[in-house]
Amino acid sequence: DPSLKVFSLNSNPELAKSIADHIGVELGKITVSHFSDGEIQINIEESIRGCDVYVVQSTSAPVNQHMMELLIMIDALKRASAKTINIIMPYYGYARQDRKARAREPITSKLIADILQTAGATRVLALDLHAPQIQGFFDIPIDHLVGVPILSDYFEKKNLEDIVVVSPDHGGVVRARRMADRLKAPIAIIDKRRPRPNVAEVMNIIGEIKGKTAIIIDDIIDTAGTLTLAANALREKGATEVYAACSHPVLSGPAIERIQNSQIKELVVTNSIPLPKEKQIENITQLSVAPLFGEAIIRIHEQQSVSILFD
Amino acid sequence: DPSLKVFSLNSNPELAKSIADHIGVELGKITVSHFSDGEIQINIEESIRGCDVYVVQSTSAPVNQHMMELLIMIDALKRASAKTINIIMPYYGYARQDRKARAREPITSKLIADILQTAGATRVLALDLHAPQIQGFFDIPIDHLVGVPILSDYFEKKNLEDIVVVSPDHGGVVRARRMADRLKAPIAIIDKRRPRPNVAEVMNIIGEIKGKTAIIIDDIIDTAGTLTLAANALREKGATEVYAACSHPVLSGPAIERIQNSQIKELVVTNSIPLPKEKQIENITQLSVAPLFGEAIIRIHEQQSVSILFD
Ligand SMILES: Nc1ncnc2c1ncn2[C@@H]1O[C@H](COP(=O)(O)O)[C@@H](O)[C@H]1O
Ligand SMILES: Nc1ncnc2c1ncn2[C@@H]1O[C@H](COP(=O)(O)O)[C@@H](O)[C@H]1O
Repeated sequence: DPSLKVFSLNSNPELAKSIADHIGVELGKITVSHFSDGEIQINIEESIRGCDVYVVQSTSAPVNQHMMELLIMIDALKRASAKTINIIMPYYGYARQDRKARAREPITSKLIADILQTAGATRVLALDLHAPQIQGFFDIPIDHLVGVPILSDYFEKKNLEDIVVVSPDHGGVVRARRMADRLKAPIAIIDKRRPRPNVAEVMNIIGEIKGKTAIIIDDIIDTAGTLTLAANALREKGATEVYAACSHPVLSGPAIERIQNSQIKELVVTNSIPLPKEKQIENITQLSVAPLFGEAIIRIHEQQSVSILFD
Repeated sequence: DPSLKVFSLNSNPELAKSIADHIGVELGKITVSHFSDGEIQINIEESIRGCDVYVVQSTSAPVNQHMMELLIMIDALKRASAKTINIIMPYYGYARQDRKARAREPITSKLIADILQTAGATRVLALDLHAPQIQGFFDIPIDHLVGVPILSDYFEKKNLEDIVVVSPDHGGVVRARRMADRLKAPIAIIDKRRPRPNVAEVMNIIGEIKGKTAIIIDDIIDTAGTLTLAANALREKGATEVYAACSHPVLSGPAIERIQNSQIKELVVTNSIPLPKEKQIENITQLSVAPLFGEAIIRIHEQQSVSILFD
């Protein structure tokens, strides 16, 4: 269908290529470069008049760069008479700034929603938003795809014995429950507590883990501090092996070193954020969300319901 | 007046300090830092409820970083109940992308205007916009201050003999005329022409320059290619000395080297963009726009007309 176009910006070109392959289209022709002073210059090199355009861009690091690229692309598409402008944001940067935890904080994930719409986005496809409430920050349709099926299918094929799915905090219990249902396993919860101020946190574990294979599941793994402490605690309290899984491998700062020196046997992530060479270490496995987003695009384009992909 | 607050972000803290000094207030307390993954974290560390807040931020390089900082700050101020949010943008990044010169280009300077308003800005103060039409991109008040008086006062004090003010292109003639009026001097215009495709440009000069002291005036000096070629042409055709002046010293890429190896005796700029150490060379003079913006703030706060500062 020539009215369906997929463009990639700079954050995740390999994923964009796989999505286009899945649908059976070529990636749209575009040049994204920089002027001498660092300003972004975008040239869309084919007509998109009247087309349904899908733009693939995770707002991963460098987040501000990727965000501005996306906004400028949307502006260009709008002025070039695209019929619809659909943003595929496998990773939604600034998602953790989703509420005022203290006085005078911004709510940057709402700001992002606002400016995407102001620029001209007509639909957003996201994966495992840090909080599902971010959907409500948009006044345009947003499809909230879920990575748990991809991650649990992978673990199912490994035929691990006596699994327990572990949520690293109370906020992640719904996600852990979902994975546990698919793996027909029980759940456990890490219950972090600081007994007194300036005393190290204690990692209590709610639920039975002794002699079991633990799979910790989270949405984002960033510096991997909590994750690796949780893995240690699980081994100490008797888990035989510890696996971990997440949708978004941010893996900033000391993350890779921490994971390498941890009790984690294997970390399974998606390609919502690409892993540069130095982060492609032996015990990290990356699964593709291209079929998921590809399927979503086909269904949207054929005016079918996408909700089947939500779980 | 405790209801008047001035905050600085990261692009131009020295200018912000000077503006605050001019008004006689302390800079507002704020911390702008980065999370481990590079996302911006802003903490406003004093109440601004009910205040008229002025935020000083040029969207100079790194432009995308500085732009997102500004948007996030505006969002935080809005949610902290600021009465008005006034943006002092001495340099307006992306101003040169102000029209579709080719098919499927963005109009990024309109996008910037839109998202500043979406974030919650209630007024903008700018200096020498690349095109005055950018004022019309805003639906909030915008004060368009002018640097020519500061630049020409400096040259007036030098008591140069037999001046001619030179516009480096046809787009800059109005600005050159303005400076020439203040210096009671004639103008000349560089008339670039490419005789045939793939043949070097010829720098014709319209107007009398022989035996005169030329002052080239422009709004932005970026890579300094045109500027230094123009200076050479002026000397070749008989100008005795060549000075240059601009409001915005972008000075990217080869600019500094070109200026050092050029016929330009002195380049006079403002501090709308700060010059890092390596760009503070002997023949560049930087003049402060702090009194100009300070005066504008005082007048706005006292509900007086600002238009006296427009020329
Ligand atoms: N990029 C980031 N890196 C680390 N922490 C963040 C980031 N963005 C926001 N936060 C903080 O993380 C907390 C929210 O995380 P959570 O409690 O897991 O929802 C808030 O206190 C935020 O200030
Ligand atoms: N940051 C930039 N650096 C160099 N050229 C630019 C920049 N932004 C836009 N332009 C181009 O400069 C031209 C506009 O400049 P002007 O003709 O002087 O108004 C357009 O063709 C733009 O594509």
